[in-house]
Amino acid sequence: MTDRTVPADPQAAMMRLGCCYYPEHWPEAMWPQDAARMVAAGLSRVRIGEFAWSRIEPEPGRFDWGWLDRAIAVLGQAGLGVILGTPTATPPKWLVDRMPGMIALDEQGRPRRFGSRRHYCFSHAGYRAEAVRITRAVAERYGRHPAVIAWQTDNEYGCHDSVVSFSEAARAAFRRWLAARYGTVDALNRAWGNVFWSMEYRSFDEVELPNLTVTEANPAHWLAFRRFSSDQVVAFNRAQVEVLRSLSPGRDVMHNFMGFFTQFDHHDVAADIDVAGWDSYPLGFLDSFRFSAADRLAYARQGHPDIAAFHHDLYRGCHPDGRWWVIEQQPGPVNWSAHNPAPLPGMVRLWTLEAMAHGAELVSYFRWRQFPQAQEQNHAGLLRPDSSDAPGLGEARQAAADIAQIGPTGAPPRTVALVFAYDADWITTIQPQGRGFSALWAAFDCYTALRRLGLDVDIIPPGRSLDGYALCVLPCLPHIPDALAQQLARFTGQVVIGPRSGSRTAEFAIPEGLAPGVLRDVLPMRVTHVESLPPGLAHRGDGWAMTRWIDHAEGAMTPELVAEDGTVAVWRHGKYRYLATWPELALAAVLMRRAAIDAGLAVHDLPEGLRLHRAGSRTFAFNYANRPVEVPQSVEGNPVIGQRNLGPAEVCVFEASSI
Amino acid sequence: MTDRTVPADPQAAMMRLGCCYYPEHWPEAMWPQDAARMVAAGLSRVRIGEFAWSRIEPEPGRFDWGWLDRAIAVLGQAGLGVILGTPTATPPKWLVDRMPGMIALDEQGRPRRFGSRRHYCFSHAGYRAEAVRITRAVAERYGRHPAVIAWQTDNEYGCHDSVVSFSEAARAAFRRWLAARYGTVDALNRAWGNVFWSMEYRSFDEVELPNLTVTEANPAHWLAFRRFSSDQVVAFNRAQVEVLRSLSPGRDVMHNFMGFFTQFDHHDVAADIDVAGWDSYPLGFLDSFRFSAADRLAYARQGHPDIAAFHHDLYRGCHPDGRWWVIEQQPGPVNWSAHNPAPLPGMVRLWTLEAMAHGAELVSYFRWRQFPQAQEQNHAGLLRPDSSDAPGLGEARQAAADIAQIGPTGAPPRTVALVFAYDADWITTIQPQGRGFSALWAAFDCYTALRRLGLDVDIIPPGRSLDGYALCVLPCLPHIPDALAQQLARFTGQVVIGPRSGSRTAEFAIPEGLAPGVLRDVLPMRVTHVESLPPGLAHRGDGWAMTRWIDHAEGAMTPELVAEDGTVAVWRHGKYRYLATWPELALAAVLMRRAAIDAGLAVHDLPEGLRLHRAGSRTFAFNYANRPVEVPQSVEGNPVIGQRNLGPAEVCVFEASSI
Amino acid sequence: MTDRTVPADPQAAMMRLGCCYYPEHWPEAMWPQDAARMVAAGLSRVRIGEFAWSRIEPEPGRFDWGWLDRAIAVLGQAGLGVILGTPTATPPKWLVDRMPGMIALDEQGRPRRFGSRRHYCFSHAGYRAEAVRITRAVAERYGRHPAVIAWQTDNEYGCHDSVVSFSEAARAAFRRWLAARYGTVDALNRAWGNVFWSMEYRSFDEVELPNLTVTEANPAHWLAFRRFSSDQVVAFNRAQVEVLRSLSPGRDVMHNFMGFFTQFDHHDVAADIDVAGWDSYPLGFLDSFRFSAADRLAYARQGHPDIAAFHHDLYRGCHPDGRWWVIEQQPGPVNWSAHNPAPLPGMVRLWTLEAMAHGAELVSYFRWRQFPQAQEQNHAGLLRPDSSDAPGLGEARQAAADIAQIGPTGAPPRTVALVFAYDADWITTIQPQGRGFSALWAAFDCYTALRRLGLDVDIIPPGRSLDGYALCVLPCLPHIPDALAQQLARFTGQVVIGPRSGSRTAEFAIPEGLAPGVLRDVLPMRVTHVESLPPGLAHRGDGWAMTRWIDHAEGAMTPELVAEDGTVAVWRHGKYRYLATWPELALAAVLMRRAAIDAGLAVHDLPEGLRLHRAGSRTFAFNYANRPVEVPQSVEGNPVIGQRNLGPAEVCVFEASSI
Repeated sequence: MTDRTVPADPQAAMMRLGCCYYPEHWPEAMWPQDAARMVAAGLSRVRIGEFAWSRIEPEPGRFDWGWLDRAIAVLGQAGLGVILGTPTATPPKWLVDRMPGMIALDEQGRPRRFGSRRHYCFSHAGYRAEAVRITRAVAERYGRHPAVIAWQTDNEYGCHDSVVSFSEAARAAFRRWLAARYGTVDALNRAWGNVFWSMEYRSFDEVELPNLTVTEANPAHWLAFRRFSSDQVVAFNRAQVEVLRSLSPGRDVMHNFMGFFTQFDHHDVAADIDVAGWDSYPLGFLDSFRFSAADRLAYARQGHPDIAAFHHDLYRGCHPDGRWWVIEQQPGPVNWSAHNPAPLPGMVRLWTLEAMAHGAELVSYFRWRQFPQAQEQNHAGLLRPDSSDAPGLGEARQAAADIAQIGPTGAPPRTVALVFAYDADWITTIQPQGRGFSALWAAFDCYTALRRLGLDVDIIPPGRSLDGYALCVLPCLPHIPDALAQQLARFTGQVVIGPRSGSRTAEFAIPEGLAPGVLRDVLPMRVTHVESLPPGLAHRGDGWAMTRWIDHAEGAMTPELVAEDGTVAVWRHGKYRYLATWPELALAAVLMRRAAIDAGLAVHDLPEGLRLHRAGSRTFAFNYANRPVEVPQSVEGNPVIGQRNLGPAEVCVFEASSI
Repeated sequence: MTDRTVPADPQAAMMRLGCCYYPEHWPEAMWPQDAARMVAAGLSRVRIGEFAWSRIEPEPGRFDWGWLDRAIAVLGQAGLGVILGTPTATPPKWLVDRMPGMIALDEQGRPRRFGSRRHYCFSHAGYRAEAVRITRAVAERYGRHPAVIAWQTDNEYGCHDSVVSFSEAARAAFRRWLAARYGTVDALNRAWGNVFWSMEYRSFDEVELPNLTVTEANPAHWLAFRRFSSDQVVAFNRAQVEVLRSLSPGRDVMHNFMGFFTQFDHHDVAADIDVAGWDSYPLGFLDSFRFSAADRLAYARQGHPDIAAFHHDLYRGCHPDGRWWVIEQQPGPVNWSAHNPAPLPGMVRLWTLEAMAHGAELVSYFRWRQFPQAQEQNHAGLLRPDSSDAPGLGEARQAAADIAQIGPTGAPPRTVALVFAYDADWITTIQPQGRGFSALWAAFDCYTALRRLGLDVDIIPPGRSLDGYALCVLPCLPHIPDALAQQLARFTGQVVIGPRSGSRTAEFAIPEGLAPGVLRDVLPMRVTHVESLPPGLAHRGDGWAMTRWIDHAEGAMTPELVAEDGTVAVWRHGKYRYLATWPELALAAVLMRRAAIDAGLAVHDLPEGLRLHRAGSRTFAFNYANRPVEVPQSVEGNPVIGQRNLGPAEVCVFEASSI
Repeated sequence: MTDRTVPADPQAAMMRLGCCYYPEHWPEAMWPQDAARMVAAGLSRVRIGEFAWSRIEPEPGRFDWGWLDRAIAVLGQAGLGVILGTPTATPPKWLVDRMPGMIALDEQGRPRRFGSRRHYCFSHAGYRAEAVRITRAVAERYGRHPAVIAWQTDNEYGCHDSVVSFSEAARAAFRRWLAARYGTVDALNRAWGNVFWSMEYRSFDEVELPNLTVTEANPAHWLAFRRFSSDQVVAFNRAQVEVLRSLSPGRDVMHNFMGFFTQFDHHDVAADIDVAGWDSYPLGFLDSFRFSAADRLAYARQGHPDIAAFHHDLYRGCHPDGRWWVIEQQPGPVNWSAHNPAPLPGMVRLWTLEAMAHGAELVSYFRWRQFPQAQEQNHAGLLRPDSSDAPGLGEARQAAADIAQIGPTGAPPRTVALVFAYDADWITTIQPQGRGFSALWAAFDCYTALRRLGLDVDIIPPGRSLDGYALCVLPCLPHIPDALAQQLARFTGQVVIGPRSGSRTAEFAIPEGLAPGVLRDVLPMRVTHVESLPPGLAHRGDGWAMTRWIDHAEGAMTPELVAEDGTVAVWRHGKYRYLATWPELALAAVLMRRAAIDAGLAVHDLPEGLRLHRAGSRTFAFNYANRPVEVPQSVEGNPVIGQRNLGPAEVCVFEASSI
């Protein structure tokens, strides 16, 4: 295994802590005390400003900089590095009233109106110009301010399903985008197979958005619209980045991504910024996403043990340089899920140290103090609304001490590469074929299987170098770029390829010669037909089951795992394995163990809820279970933090080279 | 315990029976026979007219009074007192076509069109003027008619979710209402915390209705809109009441409220009328509301044993004078729930006598004869469509005989006061924080726990005198008016206060010093944080469980009931108890029993399905179970109706002072 | 039992096979080879053209006939009879852009836009004229072409809920339709009981469509709208049929109906065409409709054993001449259900032979070759996208051989008549009274009970002759035409009448004298009241249960099957039986067995999953179970195909007269 180069930025050598702060929420007299308490707790970074447009520009063209000047001064003088947000996620009412067409329309054609946030359509040229204008104004004033060390563009692009819009602005922009992509409308008709139901267009101006059709629109139409919508986010972000680069040299530009969110191509946005940020809410995500009832109970106050880690590894791989921050870390109960329990004591520290183990440069808690009003009044902060310490503050303080004790860590090792692409999730959700099929969750389940074996995983996009990895996993990539197919053919490690991979062209067609299309050089077979299975219908093997999906194949590959009734679950051809069904956890465990062992990787039998991660010479162990577990003896090293027997929410850090 | 003064109106001394009748549905020749059969069955009141606008004014400005003159004459001559409804719940098509803006818009922006009923927006000034005009016309003609003894305004305000409207008329009225409430837009911005997401307004004309926002609007915005919407109902009703008062002196004005309905503040409407009416459909409510699968089966043909009683006690307390009627009593199967079984034989009589025990002046069956056409053709009446007796008629006749035998009853005793406020339910449904949390249902579950102990309960609004009560229960009142806090501090009985009480200011903010805010004088503690729990996650105690919600607190109170893992379910401070979780029935039973015993109240161990109520010197017992039960010997007295062993749907009335 | 006359058309004497083909999807060079392979596989019919408008008329008024001329020539020269579809289900974008009002609006008022298919409102006169214009153009060119042997009008009327439309065009047409039906608006008001909630109209121009009302609209209003909507489909179809009749003499005109679809009156459409076609997708229907979880698993790869047969018998009875085709037969997995498993090997052959047993003239597979693009890219064909054989092709070839071996069959016998009317399903779904109640599913459950006894069933409309039947079953016919009541009174066989029959007039009113209304001559009783029961509430008898519904009755009938608690499930009066509850399968089995025996019919004890059907002197047996079953010895005859022990998906044909 090859260690990565330690980043050149010395700040990144040791992970920093920070918080999100809203000086505009609090009397100015409280600011100095707040800043002093942050520093005393071990925080050195503070994010501000991202929702403050109505205070920065209370009337059109009239700016009120005084309060923000003073806030930055107070924070900077306390020794805090300021991460300044552009306020474009919350345009003020006067702007919406002047520019009503900037509002997005939802898929049902309803306006998505002012009154919360993200009330804009990414395709609206007028609003994009306004976003650039306010970004320029803020950057002109603070771009070279010594306390300002980084920028956040906007806030959580796409939150509340805000990537797609079915507005007039979006329709016009989509037509231009199509003209640029296809050149002629005949090319578009052919690419999409529009002959199918007389859907042929005579000009790009005949193309509509794919919503509100009588039955489903052409999946190729949807895929183009998803690509277009993603590109609009990229362009919107890039316009701000260009302003910031020119007016604020030397500062990092970051955006805060979300969890389990695939509505735009994060790899494309990440290519324009310096640091991939993300907002980590393990309990909210457990409750909001597709976890089993058993997991919801077992991990109600911890979060499923792979939620945070999956995203750490995803966003570390998202940026070409591997730089990433947790810019919003859940510090206690949140307000926005259907049920909002409190973390077990210790979890805030555990989540913080886990980010460290995965290579974060920064963990910043959301938020400093709980605001007693408005939408998130039930969202915890490090302080309660009355400024008393909330439990998260003590855990942050403890984490700061731990980090100091652990010292700078090396980068995570290169062991397993898991390849994920955003269009994979677009394709499978546009055309699940079996209800609920999603490439994102296929990736997550493969990731869980690998992590239960104690393996470290990098999640990378197609096209990233595979050098140094012992095992490469493609959980589900319907569209395989030619370059990736060639990489896989040259790759010397073990390869696991999951269902539906290679089953579609870039234009959402079944490839010539059938699936796996361009993968046929490494998978010498042909998928003759596919099945999706209703709940309860399964083909059972030795302790595992084929569920949800079957790729029936024929060709030169060898059956490796076969259900009792003869249905093939896993095919093998030398170092290449093909998983012809959903990565059900027991089946994925058998498969990944075989592949890892063939790859020369050491695997561990971890108790339920225990997870490991290496960083340089250290191995971190995290107990997500709600009962004590023991780190197996196969994990070598001496504890420098904690001990082998871990209570709930406890952490142990071993000093020794990882396996 | 203190008995209330028996109302001065001699009519109220003995409960009357009546029915709802639609002469416009039937040939005029049938009316005399109908009236005679009503009287023969023991009925003395008849409600008419509330849906008859298209017959009263078939063309704009052309009135047809003849049929109604004759109908009232026939009914009055038979000895029936007529309750006349204003027909404003069903404006005719010609009115809607002249005034299309009167239509409400739903939260999705869709018009709620003509074709059923309640197709108007409470904020539309033009329609309000029309409602006054038709009310005036009817009242001028019949206001002093000797047969007309009372009025009903409109019909079931809010039915079919018709309180809120998102129309232009509502938006304009809301802006005016806000201006009146807040004075300046800066005051509004501060009150709502609009700085949070740059939601600040520069004028009231910038404020939108809170629907169709990208994610949830500010809860303070919603609460203001709920208050505004409630006030519009109050104003709409008051406009009619003023006409009726001036043109029909000496007659009672009543409105018919519904069950489990909180969309407007019924206390406010009740303050303007003489009698709180309500429409009692125990089977429809069981099927339509959040009862458990077990209760749905056990009580499918009886209704849950607290449905009718809860509303009797709610609406008795709703009106300052305690005057209330059941104006629509389910007489058999209804048509409007998902499943519509028939009542067990005897239930119609049981429901009638239960209303008597709770102090009703009138029980009026809906409806005299089943109409074989239109929306409610499957809704039973006392007669079938062919004029033959339906089972309800015999039971009404039996009830009339029972009432005569029992004679005038005294008022219910003052024992337990349960405080309920409509804004409590608005706050908890605007911000459940844990899915399904509702102050209404917290109140219902506390009520059930009290009633299972055989206790009599008054449900009263904040501000009503607590004199004479031994126990006061606040199931869940997030917003506590200062006056109530002061009352509780002075109150000499036992007090039980439930979760989230005192957790919000009038403007939907967390109070300074945290919850329980103004209750901190009686509850010397501070709620440090709250949790909502997913289904299945529970902290178990001795036979009970903490579910759904936990208020974590610290301070000077003493843990009284503690779960096995140490989580405190009930805190105590002298006579004040705080329930820090959902009133799960087993837990609420333990808690209420302790509080009742401390209050010096006798409690009973009632078998499942048995309920008691006192009225003057009598104790009524009602068997809602679908198998026989025995009234425990702890209930003293001699049966004057029925016997101690009660079959399903049977009633026993004991003559003796209650415990 | 009386056999029907064998149709005069010699083509019908032996069932033919065919397929659906889209020459426009494939390079012209592939056509000859495709045609040759079809013929080699035993196919002799090919359906083409029904979605090809954009290729036939690529610009307004500019026709491109060349490709279609050549396609028909190639197919015809290969010996295939061409069934040509009118392309009106997929109007091209240029037409929609010229005529935006042709778009339907859904019940929520949203446009149902271009981008898939069926984007038109049946009431739009402009589009109807366009449909006639394109039909005329196609028929003028190919109406007398020797290869063209039949026509299909449009495609799957109503697919994607496209019968009803709430557009301006529909509103105007509805008003005209009402004026024609009722003559005066007073007549309409009386017929609907509009006095009920002041819903009276002063002119037809005041009548709105019944959507978007505050609560449910008058059920009579809905029923009129459903009738109107059905009539619009009939008129739309008739306009095309008239063109085809005049321009293409001697060719059959057919339309392809769907499964479990009742949104228009198929009997009315069938009266205008020569052959009732239908599209048979047993696996998709199992997954999409209301089958139990157990059935979904047991029959996941076979389809419930009555799905195909029910529709065969329904559409055979739909057309007065009994002519019917399966024009689209599922050949493998489909794409459009929530889960899409593959058929068990053998099922495609089984479905084909089952259609033969039920008297089909043609089974045509959808589709020849899987198209790798657009909406149905995952829908199997007889060929895969790469032109290799899919499993369906081999089974079609086998079926062709079987058919040749079996030879011409006689018609199905007249044994049991099951009467079904489309307005029955409209009435019960407009007013289920108990959630999920549907006359269609009552009919299906009765059908299943009959088929489990080994009986052959004809499904016929009210008014069709009952001569020759031994048993007549009316599962649920709320509205009974007088003529049917008279037929039943004269009928000499046994009669079973199901719940709610006779309970409504033609105008959705409870009949005078109560239910069963006009049936009171044969059912001397009166339904005093009805109940719908929540799930779990049941009245149990000897191995059976009364669920969902109870008609409580009194009168001169005799209780025949009585639940333990005394509730009557089945009443009897001579040869007439009345089922007073839902046809729960165990109860329906007891009832139908009694009725069949009384009718002199032999019944069989069939193992689960086995079904029989007679055709002339042959008895076909089909094993839908996923394990082997044996045909009982009570089924007489010698196997000419297969054997008595049937593996999954196997078929046995016995040569001998049926029982």
